[in-house]
Amino acid sequence: MPKLWSETIEEHRRSVRDATLDTTAALVARHGLAGVTMSQVAKETGIGRATLYKYFPSVESILLAWHERQVTDHLAHLAVIRDRAGEDPGKRLAAVLEAYAVINHHRSLHGRQPHGAEFAEFLHAGSRVASGHARLRTMIADLLRAAADSGDVRADVSPDELASFCLHALNAATEAPAKAAARRLVTVTLDALRPR
Amino acid sequence: MPKLWSETIEEHRRSVRDATLDTTAALVARHGLAGVTMSQVAKETGIGRATLYKYFPSVESILLAWHERQVTDHLAHLAVIRDRAGEDPGKRLAAVLEAYAVINHHRSLHGRQPHGAEFAEFLHAGSRVASGHARLRTMIADLLRAAADSGDVRADVSPDELASFCLHALNAATEAPAKAAARRLVTVTLDALRPR
Repeated sequence: MPKLWSETIEEHRRSVRDATLDTTAALVARHGLAGVTMSQVAKETGIGRATLYKYFPSVESILLAWHERQVTDHLAHLAVIRDRAGEDPGKRLAAVLEAYAVINHHRSLHGRQPHGAEFAEFLHAGSRVASGHARLRTMIADLLRAAADSGDVRADVSPDELASFCLHALNAATEAPAKAAARRLVTVTLDALRPR
Repeated sequence: MPKLWSETIEEHRRSVRDATLDTTAALVARHGLAGVTMSQVAKETGIGRATLYKYFPSVESILLAWHERQVTDHLAHLAVIRDRAGEDPGKRLAAVLEAYAVINHHRSLHGRQPHGAEFAEFLHAGSRVASGHARLRTMIADLLRAAADSGDVRADVSPDELASFCLHALNAATEAPAKAAARRLVTVTLDALRPR
């Protein structure tokens, strides 16, 4: 098979996959996990049921793939924000924490859909999202370590403990009624990190 | 029926109820929700199955009653800590936040049992624990408001937003490997609240 043809196939596969993930996530948020069937997903995505089953065995597996893609996208977004923020460790940290708070704030809008809570519950059960969280935590801990070395962040608490603090504190952004509240939350969190 | 006799009955009922809640929570943490039956609960509690059904319709309902009791106990504990801390608003706030971090740290030991995560997931799904959280949040927000009025806490962010920040940040204590780490977390959280 010529290379160009296989690339087209690959691109087509990816776009079918992406459409499947988006459709399923939207359906589950609206109708709940128990209220969505593979047939519905196939119909809404506009592909055959047999084709859908070639990609995924179940609605649950699609939802997990959707989440994996979300986490990967978010991490890539945070990496761009970090690198754009320049060389100053304090500024890099602040930029990433603010972007993370905004992601959480947006996540919460999704969570306000009829079955948003059940949706989030399914994804966060057990270790399903553990690898994504671990990657995020590593990124934040690395930023904190660099900022502690440069004197921008307190050194009396380890970067790992501070990373845990930051990630939990910024989860409060899921409750922030508006973006301004999410930003105030970032300010408060950054104040906690200042050197003593 | 003479009053004393009815009081004895009441006391007996309460102790059967308490034993049922404790037994069920321990069983579910060990075997998972799907792995525990009403018959098992009755047998382990040492009461008849018919008696058990007089109190509770299902294992789920026992678990919810257990959680409601936990939350009520925790809130009562925090209220004692608060009142013991004296009149100083800053000290009252600090004492309650530290006690809350310790509760979270202990909760996490429970969560490390085989089915701890599933257990927590069940309890935190949807709005099951919403009323307990609301009471806790009100207590923390009231303490923050008093401490802001006395100048012990920053006034540039509302007590409600700061309460949300504190509760989320102190959830990190569930990941603290030791009590010392939980205490450092409280220090960092309190530093964030200082007036600017």
